[in-house]
Amino acid sequence: MLFRQLFDDTSSTYTYLVADLVWHQAALIDPVREQAERDLALLDELGLNLAWVLETHVHADHITAAAHLREVTGAAVGYGVGSGVGCAERLFADGDEIEIGDERIRVLATPGHTDGCVSYLWRDRVFTGDALLIGSCGRTDFQEGDAGRLYESITDRLFTLPGETLVYPAHDYVGRRVSSIAQEQATNEFAGGDVDREAFIMALAGMKLEPPRLIDVAVSANRHCGRSGES
Amino acid sequence: MLFRQLFDDTSSTYTYLVADLVWHQAALIDPVREQAERDLALLDELGLNLAWVLETHVHADHITAAAHLREVTGAAVGYGVGSGVGCAERLFADGDEIEIGDERIRVLATPGHTDGCVSYLWRDRVFTGDALLIGSCGRTDFQEGDAGRLYESITDRLFTLPGETLVYPAHDYVGRRVSSIAQEQATNEFAGGDVDREAFIMALAGMKLEPPRLIDVAVSANRHCGRSGES
Repeated sequence: MLFRQLFDDTSSTYTYLVADLVWHQAALIDPVREQAERDLALLDELGLNLAWVLETHVHADHITAAAHLREVTGAAVGYGVGSGVGCAERLFADGDEIEIGDERIRVLATPGHTDGCVSYLWRDRVFTGDALLIGSCGRTDFQEGDAGRLYESITDRLFTLPGETLVYPAHDYVGRRVSSIAQEQATNEFAGGDVDREAFIMALAGMKLEPPRLIDVAVSANRHCGRSGES
Repeated sequence: MLFRQLFDDTSSTYTYLVADLVWHQAALIDPVREQAERDLALLDELGLNLAWVLETHVHADHITAAAHLREVTGAAVGYGVGSGVGCAERLFADGDEIEIGDERIRVLATPGHTDGCVSYLWRDRVFTGDALLIGSCGRTDFQEGDAGRLYESITDRLFTLPGETLVYPAHDYVGRRVSSIAQEQATNEFAGGDVDREAFIMALAGMKLEPPRLIDVAVSANRHCGRSGES
């Protein structure tokens, strides 16, 4: 197996490469349009065929490279079924499995930041998108944000994974790159400790963040797998 | 393979269990004497034979369970050659390999906190003891502490591992459980960014920590694999 964690400085987005080295098959999780050439060069350098582009959700802060990577490599694009996008080869339901050569990635529905948010569980690593961030979690004040559903996704689906499971989020803004379920259970500002559903909802209501700068253009483009200009 | 991260509240020490599930062989890294029964119960529950107790160094803040675990299980005890302990079955030199069933653990000499400090590299995980902590590093103001050597261990040996390599330290005092080489290169308070050797040495000289409460009894006992009372 092979694993790489890539970073887009502009949007502070992590993109993950997961590959099987027996069959030279790869998946990219949450690739960023402006970094598509970097990702293609890396696949080429490593001799990997891109089988899947896996989106954790319809991002509001950057445009996905999915459509471009699909055109160049023939990869299939997958989103969570709740995303409602029409451009994907497959819309994943909770529990679905994706094959990357001999590797298996399992889909966990983790809605709340958006309706269609999914996490991808591979071996002992979970790619949580914006559902669970390191020390934090996704905001729930736009798209289909629902703090109560996010609480359930985090506590019922993610925090029930083994404590050693490595948490790889879609973003970090201060240079952190990895956490674990046990670390988040203990230290997450919003979901850690003994916080209950009501306290979590209250805390998220108090986030008071500016809207993402690219929200209009990004959400629209990402509903088309990153093809901006389409309606 | 199997991996567990265990924690001793009293000394804030992480103990790691690494095992091969084909041969049911295991290693414990830095077990704590007061937690020996917990560790033995876990080995029993998982049906594992303890092949090795691997010490990252002669600890000053807790007493190792090595001698007790060796008596109960027949495990061998390993320390870095620079530790000078006489109680170990093997004193590891830089580059040595340890077999745990089909798993391989490689020894990296990472002196500076003490002369005999080693890190253990297993797959894409490195157990750094007190050489590299999450966001920090081991102090160098007692035993054979040498900040210049520690700088070289961190920058020349650990920071030359792939960025995705997971960093599992011997301690954390605020609930963090895992980091990566890339995260430490970017964010470590002492060794991150473009810090040079002189600045690192100056920063460590400014740590001004109290001596560990157990230093006299712990160092003495750990030189005998955790048998206190022996000279």
